[in-house]
Amino acid sequence: MTASIVDTLRVLRINGDASHYIEDSIVKESPLTIIFNGEELVTLLCSPQHLNYLAIGYLVSEGLLKQKGDIKRLLTDDRRGVVRVDTAGGSQGETAELTFKRLITSGCGRGSSVYSMGEVPISRITSSVSIAPSQVLTLMKNFQQRCTTFKITGGVHAAALCDKNEILAFHEDIGRHNAIDKVLGQCFLEDITTAEPLLLTSGRVSSEVVLKTTRRGISILISKSAPTDLAVKLAQDLGITLVGFVRGQRMNVYANEWRVNTNERPGD
Amino acid sequence: MTASIVDTLRVLRINGDASHYIEDSIVKESPLTIIFNGEELVTLLCSPQHLNYLAIGYLVSEGLLKQKGDIKRLLTDDRRGVVRVDTAGGSQGETAELTFKRLITSGCGRGSSVYSMGEVPISRITSSVSIAPSQVLTLMKNFQQRCTTFKITGGVHAAALCDKNEILAFHEDIGRHNAIDKVLGQCFLEDITTAEPLLLTSGRVSSEVVLKTTRRGISILISKSAPTDLAVKLAQDLGITLVGFVRGQRMNVYANEWRVNTNERPGD
Repeated sequence: MTASIVDTLRVLRINGDASHYIEDSIVKESPLTIIFNGEELVTLLCSPQHLNYLAIGYLVSEGLLKQKGDIKRLLTDDRRGVVRVDTAGGSQGETAELTFKRLITSGCGRGSSVYSMGEVPISRITSSVSIAPSQVLTLMKNFQQRCTTFKITGGVHAAALCDKNEILAFHEDIGRHNAIDKVLGQCFLEDITTAEPLLLTSGRVSSEVVLKTTRRGISILISKSAPTDLAVKLAQDLGITLVGFVRGQRMNVYANEWRVNTNERPGD
Repeated sequence: MTASIVDTLRVLRINGDASHYIEDSIVKESPLTIIFNGEELVTLLCSPQHLNYLAIGYLVSEGLLKQKGDIKRLLTDDRRGVVRVDTAGGSQGETAELTFKRLITSGCGRGSSVYSMGEVPISRITSSVSIAPSQVLTLMKNFQQRCTTFKITGGVHAAALCDKNEILAFHEDIGRHNAIDKVLGQCFLEDITTAEPLLLTSGRVSSEVVLKTTRRGISILISKSAPTDLAVKLAQDLGITLVGFVRGQRMNVYANEWRVNTNERPGD
């Protein structure tokens, strides 16, 4: 499965005073252009796998796609790196206006969604789901065991949708956001749901990651890495339980810690 | 210096069966809006420090600003997170056209510069500078010693402009690209130059990082982390020496390895 997102390369390995050429593994990077209702919406640089999931996940995360039934046509050209998505009722003019709005409030580069914060209302999560610390640790252990591309190349991030006991969808990508969007896109397209969804990520949690999570109604966000203060504030305000630095037997709970039941044991 | 990009927060620390509240350090995240020739160009999510460097570095990296003399006005509002840059001869209409062009070829999200690849010509680097492996290791050691915010929070990336012997400009930021743009922006604004410039980064090297480096005429790019295959191909084509995974006594040279002189010793 990892074959198509990893290549091998001749590399000069230097170790102290010694040097020699080796064959090394390297992650592939390739552009994906999303054509939304006939207009070029965005080009993402990503791992060239599951482009349909990434395109759909991106549209869902940006609030441009709300229900699976809205997709009228989904065409994926893996070779050229193009995904076309047409929605019921979508028209060229509408998209142009949307994309222009996006541009002037957030634009290109890295991290998009000030637009999403302002323009598309997001509801506070009220789910009463809870999880035991031991379940968090087990999920993170299983998650890391599946990070095979990272183990080979050190060049990707990973994300997963889980319930309390197992991983339901998992992706690795050169982009921290892309990995999450591939997971969300697959779940959206293939109706992968659970009453108690959790999102796991290998990457740092910035405000946009909390917004993506909230938009999909996911109440618990778990990261191997650090959050930012803005991510924590948003998680507090939006009712998201934010767990970071899950490493060994330890973790930090940054927001809505009542969902991490320190008295609960698995099976309760 | 790190005080303004780090805050403290009450966090529930769980360790095995024990749990207690601690005061923990966390990186701040805040939006920077760049107004270029009177129009809103982009909003970046970043560490709230040196916003002027980030704005200028972003414009330079995107090819929108070529020479320091082109800057007619530079106004920074740190509190509101806004930097206004006006250039000689810049007009509203021109910016609107530029930003629209950017949008339709690359757009928002993460990773911008397919536009930059296509629209703004980049020259191949022909510099004959070379460096000894021991110098690379010493620079990386000094670089990591300066990553104080990372040591406290685990939540930032770092970048530096160096010559073969020392670090000339250094920044940490929650964004991998932002850290590089702050370094490039400071060097641009403050005329920090050297005949043999090297760029160090803590982060993964994707194609955009190689393009930024090339645009500034930097011939050697050194990372603690992994590159992608597209970054390596671009580095090969553009004449950039790309060194990755500099850890302990080891490193991998992915492109134009002739600049890493395995026979040269410091002082030669």
